[in-house]
Amino acid sequence: MRILLVNPNMTQGMTDRMFTIASAIAGDRAEIVPLTATRGFPYIASRTEAQIAGEIALEMIAEHREGADVAIIAAFGDPGLAAARELFDMPIIGMADAAVHTAALLGGSFAVVTFTPFMNRWYEDCIKATGLSSRSRGVRSAAEKPIDVASVRDDAREELIALARDAALKDGAEVIILGGAPLAGLAPEIAADVPALVIDPISAATCQALAVAGLAPGLDYSTRATRPAPKSSVGLAGPLRALIAGDV
Amino acid sequence: MRILLVNPNMTQGMTDRMFTIASAIAGDRAEIVPLTATRGFPYIASRTEAQIAGEIALEMIAEHREGADVAIIAAFGDPGLAAARELFDMPIIGMADAAVHTAALLGGSFAVVTFTPFMNRWYEDCIKATGLSSRSRGVRSAAEKPIDVASVRDDAREELIALARDAALKDGAEVIILGGAPLAGLAPEIAADVPALVIDPISAATCQALAVAGLAPGLDYSTRATRPAPKSSVGLAGPLRALIAGDV
Amino acid sequence: MRILLVNPNMTQGMTDRMFTIASAIAGDRAEIVPLTATRGFPYIASRTEAQIAGEIALEMIAEHREGADVAIIAAFGDPGLAAARELFDMPIIGMADAAVHTAALLGGSFAVVTFTPFMNRWYEDCIKATGLSSRSRGVRSAAEKPIDVASVRDDAREELIALARDAALKDGAEVIILGGAPLAGLAPEIAADVPALVIDPISAATCQALAVAGLAPGLDYSTRATRPAPKSSVGLAGPLRALIAGDV
Amino acid sequence: MRILLVNPNMTQGMTDRMFTIASAIAGDRAEIVPLTATRGFPYIASRTEAQIAGEIALEMIAEHREGADVAIIAAFGDPGLAAARELFDMPIIGMADAAVHTAALLGGSFAVVTFTPFMNRWYEDCIKATGLSSRSRGVRSAAEKPIDVASVRDDAREELIALARDAALKDGAEVIILGGAPLAGLAPEIAADVPALVIDPISAATCQALAVAGLAPGLDYSTRATRPAPKSSVGLAGPLRALIAGDV
Amino acid sequence: MRILLVNPNMTQGMTDRMFTIASAIAGDRAEIVPLTATRGFPYIASRTEAQIAGEIALEMIAEHREGADVAIIAAFGDPGLAAARELFDMPIIGMADAAVHTAALLGGSFAVVTFTPFMNRWYEDCIKATGLSSRSRGVRSAAEKPIDVASVRDDAREELIALARDAALKDGAEVIILGGAPLAGLAPEIAADVPALVIDPISAATCQALAVAGLAPGLDYSTRATRPAPKSSVGLAGPLRALIAGDV
Amino acid sequence: MRILLVNPNMTQGMTDRMFTIASAIAGDRAEIVPLTATRGFPYIASRTEAQIAGEIALEMIAEHREGADVAIIAAFGDPGLAAARELFDMPIIGMADAAVHTAALLGGSFAVVTFTPFMNRWYEDCIKATGLSSRSRGVRSAAEKPIDVASVRDDAREELIALARDAALKDGAEVIILGGAPLAGLAPEIAADVPALVIDPISAATCQALAVAGLAPGLDYSTRATRPAPKSSVGLAGPLRALIAGDV
Repeated sequence: MRILLVNPNMTQGMTDRMFTIASAIAGDRAEIVPLTATRGFPYIASRTEAQIAGEIALEMIAEHREGADVAIIAAFGDPGLAAARELFDMPIIGMADAAVHTAALLGGSFAVVTFTPFMNRWYEDCIKATGLSSRSRGVRSAAEKPIDVASVRDDAREELIALARDAALKDGAEVIILGGAPLAGLAPEIAADVPALVIDPISAATCQALAVAGLAPGLDYSTRATRPAPKSSVGLAGPLRALIAGDV
Repeated sequence: MRILLVNPNMTQGMTDRMFTIASAIAGDRAEIVPLTATRGFPYIASRTEAQIAGEIALEMIAEHREGADVAIIAAFGDPGLAAARELFDMPIIGMADAAVHTAALLGGSFAVVTFTPFMNRWYEDCIKATGLSSRSRGVRSAAEKPIDVASVRDDAREELIALARDAALKDGAEVIILGGAPLAGLAPEIAADVPALVIDPISAATCQALAVAGLAPGLDYSTRATRPAPKSSVGLAGPLRALIAGDV
Repeated sequence: MRILLVNPNMTQGMTDRMFTIASAIAGDRAEIVPLTATRGFPYIASRTEAQIAGEIALEMIAEHREGADVAIIAAFGDPGLAAARELFDMPIIGMADAAVHTAALLGGSFAVVTFTPFMNRWYEDCIKATGLSSRSRGVRSAAEKPIDVASVRDDAREELIALARDAALKDGAEVIILGGAPLAGLAPEIAADVPALVIDPISAATCQALAVAGLAPGLDYSTRATRPAPKSSVGLAGPLRALIAGDV
Repeated sequence: MRILLVNPNMTQGMTDRMFTIASAIAGDRAEIVPLTATRGFPYIASRTEAQIAGEIALEMIAEHREGADVAIIAAFGDPGLAAARELFDMPIIGMADAAVHTAALLGGSFAVVTFTPFMNRWYEDCIKATGLSSRSRGVRSAAEKPIDVASVRDDAREELIALARDAALKDGAEVIILGGAPLAGLAPEIAADVPALVIDPISAATCQALAVAGLAPGLDYSTRATRPAPKSSVGLAGPLRALIAGDV
Repeated sequence: MRILLVNPNMTQGMTDRMFTIASAIAGDRAEIVPLTATRGFPYIASRTEAQIAGEIALEMIAEHREGADVAIIAAFGDPGLAAARELFDMPIIGMADAAVHTAALLGGSFAVVTFTPFMNRWYEDCIKATGLSSRSRGVRSAAEKPIDVASVRDDAREELIALARDAALKDGAEVIILGGAPLAGLAPEIAADVPALVIDPISAATCQALAVAGLAPGLDYSTRATRPAPKSSVGLAGPLRALIAGDV
Repeated sequence: MRILLVNPNMTQGMTDRMFTIASAIAGDRAEIVPLTATRGFPYIASRTEAQIAGEIALEMIAEHREGADVAIIAAFGDPGLAAARELFDMPIIGMADAAVHTAALLGGSFAVVTFTPFMNRWYEDCIKATGLSSRSRGVRSAAEKPIDVASVRDDAREELIALARDAALKDGAEVIILGGAPLAGLAPEIAADVPALVIDPISAATCQALAVAGLAPGLDYSTRATRPAPKSSVGLAGPLRALIAGDV
């Protein structure tokens, strides 16, 4: 099985860290193909950047889709997710979307905890997009302050535990999603200190990619009514242009 | 890995059919432990029966939980699901709940298609319980008529395809859930005739069981704030009584 | 008129206190038949316990339904309510459900105030189950501390008044539900100190039982489409088994 | 006990019919005081008319509130309900509001059936106002045709039964509200022909008036934060002006 | 173009201030016709007063509708809005309704900030009536204290800025509505101090009146199915009576 | 005043037709600057195409924003709307978004009528994005058949009238949105035949652009908390790159 790990950000280090986690989970069940954007932004953090990165994600999947069974769009905010699910003849997993649905499969309510208030609105957009707002207990974030992305996992550890405790005890969240790529892999380390289940989005996304890939042999993408009709275009990257044009 | 396949109905044949499908999906990644209720009802089909079967599901999991990594409650309606997620220190998957979340991971909207109007209300209860009603396009069922459960898969095949087509083309469903144990395994067979993705609940539940089991090593169930306090009781089955009493 | 007051908990003292209040309201209009569970739990306080107590409530009603006009399931959380409404040919009142609908009949918004944070999640589940979340202003509870159930009404009186004032003045609740059996009867005593209407769930449930019983002569339960078909079963208490089997 | 039966329409015959039904239900438990509007419209049938009739309802209650324990606003659409609940120091019951909450106390879902499509939008407004839209299965009405209000109960009987059957069997409604004053009292007559519980709004309103009156001794209206501050006014009917001015 | 500026309050000074603002926006594109209620209340501040003022608004529009292109109901709470939209053959703008929709046209989420907690519930009712609650971040109001309506704009300026900052930074509101007639015109003055867009309801209402008047030539009000049938009445103000009777 | 009319499609004829309508509405109040995409698609008709066209809309606005007061994204589906509202320091109007809010300002409920079922899902996405689904009565579309975009206005006229009549009479829509660029300008022509108000999206968008531009002098975009921080990027069109980088 082949899973595309599509990082629509240009930061290779993020891809590497996510690749390590995803590979550990997939083991010998799947080959993880790490892809890092070669145009766009170092780190997507706004609706504007997500609008643009969404097309970049489509381009990356279009270019590497040959032989792939499923693709993970590996950025919170899930840029391009709805479009990719419409366009490609394989399952597409979004990192935030997968984290939220996985949380809903584990407990009655969930919350997001993260290291900066900067992303709150975006996380809330993500939750709303899943349709599961009624089960959300909101987003709690650390106070605004200068952040070293490389060490924030350690620097903010105690504050994150405290936020997760509040989300569980004050807001009643039964599952905590630890949001933000710089926190990838922290969940199991603080699990014992948090009175709720704690999940890591990239791990959840990998598990869900394996899950839907397990169903994929029985799914027939070719007959979908929602498949866009072939369409000519100007100015798109080659493989994406060809796919949309039906030149397959 | 060990997955309990808990059929809270007393019909062994249903367990067998689901076991076959689940085992094929799990392959050598997990041992599927099939369990059939020894008290209760041949086939749960009402809220009353689900109320009672919910306790039976708890009893079955309590008795066999030793060494298990995850349990599937393998009946549409997911009897006992919320209670089991509260009580047991492992992930619990509900068949309807897993089908709905999996559908939401594959496309923007979903519908349920089934072979008898008898279960419509229950399916709608299931969708509502997930919190995903805003993405549902409803339940379509075959006309009421006498049904031979053993052959309904073949007898109703054309009618089910027509219903699924309507759900896709008239209601706009992008994913179809084929509801009801007698239809287990039919999804891939009709996929090519339906202009939407078609999923089979027991397959979806197995894939989701594997997915959450993949996360389980990082989940710490022992610290959960929602874990019920130990409680004495009268009249419960032994292992369930002991677990609730904290005699573990 | 005959009203079953079904306490699915095993604590006789709770039944006695509720019986006194319900009898005072019913006067000579109805005979209140107090019933206390003989198996199950001293005091239901979790989803697990409610799952099991729901069946116990069904058993108790099945055993005493002869000659009864309506039954009250007298425990917050309303264990077994939806199943009982489906199964029995008479109206069934749930204590939390009745409190919420009565609150909605008295004012535009309502809140629940209670003496321990332990039950918050359950109260919220109850409100959600009624479908009236959009009119709820949430649950406010006293700080976590050791509680003597017998004296909490007096011990926590000032704190409860303060919480109710906040629910009214800060959250805008027009009606306050005083939740939890140990507070039964407290509502009228603190009414003058709270800038909102204050209601007592067991009183509300009794009034609603009388209300629906008033309609009952015009209701024909025998023709309901949602009545479950007769079904054989194994291991159920005799009267419940007989009723479900259609041996009436 | 004294219950004001406030008909904000000017048609005496409607008041008489509702008085007969309400009196039969109240028996010797309450005196029903029938009031018919002396200004306004023969029969309210639009938002405009309801806007105006709402003030008329306030005037009528203000004039007769001395000694009353509860008031019923006896017109579908519940004109003036929210204002009356704010203004008067006693419980106020709306006919549509009471029917919907009573339906919700009897079953999981409800629908309205009525004799003309003319009122559909208004009934839907009523349901929406209760906050219970998620439990509604909509409004079904007879085809548009000339109607003799005096005989529509008999003329439309078969069509209404058919509509109610469809609401129950096709839409899954467990309770049917028979909407519209000309149908008052029809519910019990057709109950045996409808596969759902059928309720009559004026009967439901009377039962709920008795229910909330039963709670009233414990309710303290004088301390409510939502009580409007005294306010001078120009041009209002005397008793309403005096009440709003705090000249009590 | 002729726009009725209908103040259903009796306070001339409020009309004057709103007229000044509206006229400045309309310039030579429209004649603003200021109307002040001659009966009713000095300042509407409750549901009761709004119920009555709604009819007064209908009377005022009915009397001056000749030659008018659109009417603004210029009081927060939008008394009579739904009825007026049904009754009159021209667009009707509500001040709160227009502010909320304009906010939604400018940004993803909005909040209301006002100078007294007294109106919170009413503002929340307004937001709910628009159907846009899911985009609301709530109402923040200054602490309760004696207020001089004439100078509150200056007296509360700093506190209002602080509240608006909190609504933007803590609640994530992208647009702030400055609620309450005494704050009319303050929005642009504090815009630079608030990290969100700030809008003034009467300005928003005037802009929306011009917008819908721009569409009005293409709207045919005479054929509307929702137009109430002509109806006789007793006791209404002459022009309103005549309009409802169809004597046009 | 200067309004950018941004057509993110490449079809000049559509821009011309919309320019004619918008100019007629704006008169001498605003200069309409018509812009047609020079890359992308002839006509956007899928989520994929909208994902890409969203970036194109951002590029077009970025390139021409100098001296503009407001921009209209003139394609149903509003590609790039949320991003553009975040990025640009001026109001951004979406054609579908404006049509829906304008409909909500004119009546209690609305529906969309269009000439092909192909766009139903997209129209529903648009309605959902506004948050006004509770006021929508859905989308009705002509049967699927070959369409000549140039003449569909005439060819489908009778069918569209019939659909609009059904939306009004069967679904209760008080306002009809005539969706799809090929129908631009048809609304006033059929208004007399439809028992509801009928609105044209491009006209509604132009009116709303003028409305928000009227407020714009009082809006301070420079202080917004939601303004993205300057960010370097690779591969973006020059003006968009510069704007995102803060090189202004």
